[in-house]
Amino acid sequence: MYNKSQLKEIIEKAISGLRYETEAEKLTEPVKYVLSIGGKRVRPLLTLMTCNLFSDKIDEAIMPATGIEVFHNFTLVHDDIMDNAPVRRGLPTVFKKWDLNQAVLSGDVMAFIANDCFLQAPANSISSVLRIYNKAAIEVCMGQQQDMDFETATAITQDAYLRMIELKTAVLIASAARIGAVIGGAMDQDSDLIYEFGRSLGLAFQLQDDLLDVYGDYKVFGKIQGGDILANKKTYLYVIASEKANKVQLNKLRKLFTTKEIDPDKKVREVMGLYDELNIKDPAESLIRKYFDKAFECLDNTAVHAGRKDELTAMASSLIGRGN
Amino acid sequence: MYNKSQLKEIIEKAISGLRYETEAEKLTEPVKYVLSIGGKRVRPLLTLMTCNLFSDKIDEAIMPATGIEVFHNFTLVHDDIMDNAPVRRGLPTVFKKWDLNQAVLSGDVMAFIANDCFLQAPANSISSVLRIYNKAAIEVCMGQQQDMDFETATAITQDAYLRMIELKTAVLIASAARIGAVIGGAMDQDSDLIYEFGRSLGLAFQLQDDLLDVYGDYKVFGKIQGGDILANKKTYLYVIASEKANKVQLNKLRKLFTTKEIDPDKKVREVMGLYDELNIKDPAESLIRKYFDKAFECLDNTAVHAGRKDELTAMASSLIGRGN
Repeated sequence: MYNKSQLKEIIEKAISGLRYETEAEKLTEPVKYVLSIGGKRVRPLLTLMTCNLFSDKIDEAIMPATGIEVFHNFTLVHDDIMDNAPVRRGLPTVFKKWDLNQAVLSGDVMAFIANDCFLQAPANSISSVLRIYNKAAIEVCMGQQQDMDFETATAITQDAYLRMIELKTAVLIASAARIGAVIGGAMDQDSDLIYEFGRSLGLAFQLQDDLLDVYGDYKVFGKIQGGDILANKKTYLYVIASEKANKVQLNKLRKLFTTKEIDPDKKVREVMGLYDELNIKDPAESLIRKYFDKAFECLDNTAVHAGRKDELTAMASSLIGRGN
Repeated sequence: MYNKSQLKEIIEKAISGLRYETEAEKLTEPVKYVLSIGGKRVRPLLTLMTCNLFSDKIDEAIMPATGIEVFHNFTLVHDDIMDNAPVRRGLPTVFKKWDLNQAVLSGDVMAFIANDCFLQAPANSISSVLRIYNKAAIEVCMGQQQDMDFETATAITQDAYLRMIELKTAVLIASAARIGAVIGGAMDQDSDLIYEFGRSLGLAFQLQDDLLDVYGDYKVFGKIQGGDILANKKTYLYVIASEKANKVQLNKLRKLFTTKEIDPDKKVREVMGLYDELNIKDPAESLIRKYFDKAFECLDNTAVHAGRKDELTAMASSLIGRGN
């Protein structure tokens, strides 16, 4: 069994080892830039760990794992255009460091570099791996569309919100996990359980992210408290607050999320006041717990010796801030 | 053997028959819009024709042919962002009809819809078809990058220009042809010849397009005479004019391609005057002929009964405006 830090090293090596065609250097400079910034590499780690769950040999999962990370970064490059975002992970976005055209085109080529990675899957699983990946890729686009649609929507139901984050975030995590399992030789039932594990984990992870924006220790999580509120982002907190609010509270909430003439600190304070008044922290935490428990139930049910699950359990826990 | 109009019908049916996930209608509306506008469908026609060259059964090439067309339209949607182009094929571009974000995202999903089409290739050729396609897709991005780089370049050699149009235009035509051949069961040697046929045809086609911008009968070709000149586009004509020009002529040419304070009619007239003075029509026509002849030489050399080549010959000829 590999431990997390060994797997992280394998992934970093695979990413920095990607060879790019050199006939247009300006095309691949932003690709190298984005991929070198790093991050937690959650998705490729999951792929390698789920592969390792079913097989001692993980070599054949390395390039597909890398493909998932390249795709994920492709979505970030294009999302930053759509969000007009100047900074990501503390550094200028491609869109800002270069320009719009470069972000469109260098993003595009990443989608094909990702394909290339998946085409290096073992011959007998190329088709299934590509099918799992490509279904997720289309769903991620759908999730991004729904997220954009929500910006101008007046009312968003909990179900609609959960489906959006499922598409935008959870299905890729689920597919990263399933691809590893498939390459590791998992049978269909285990592959389904691993997908469901990843999906539930992804949902818990995104909801936790929504919660931490307001209730997290911003010194620990490295984000500005209320960043989503300041960006008028309709997160799960906003959605349940809208559902629980009376008419007066709802008007106040909506006004706070549309007005531009308010001091940022005051805005965050007032929205947080409303959230507290409506007691939305509890239902949010309980839903996160529900998905988190569901994820572990699925992992428990896979036909794999419990001892093999330790690394995956530890990583999943740390992802939700419940481990180390 | 199928004739061109039968194949065109098959392609239109496959394109309009594409089923899209419906969880985000705004995502796929621009996709349907772009794909319904039509065009000559040169690339998928080539795929079906080269398949039909080697096999009487073309069914298995239909979805990969459709994938090529979806990819081609993906590049158009994103190129129109990069060129800030309001109109294509007489209709507003996605970028203009919707907005930047929609053009980025709906373009993106087309790359994955294309993948989906290729994944419907026959099981024994999925990997090779995807490899051929994906190599071309990366090269097309490289070509677009080089084209963007040329906008600010002062001197462009003929070789650099030819490589750019090879990457941006010819490799996709070549790959469309090769994919059909592979699915049709062509042996490696024939598959290489068919690729080279498509590559040469693509080069001839793009050079012809450059030439017709200035020397074509604009009533026949439906474009404004000198459109490339007005857009300061450095075409093959510009490149050879730069090479043949003396210092005075070169300064005049460069000035005409950078100044904004000149009447459009006068600009086109003056550039055309320079082109005539330098006699660039002859070398351009002779290079087009060279590639055109090369294409047919390759087609002639494939190990296929001559009678099977008629449709492909006719279409290739009409593409260069030498048939009907």
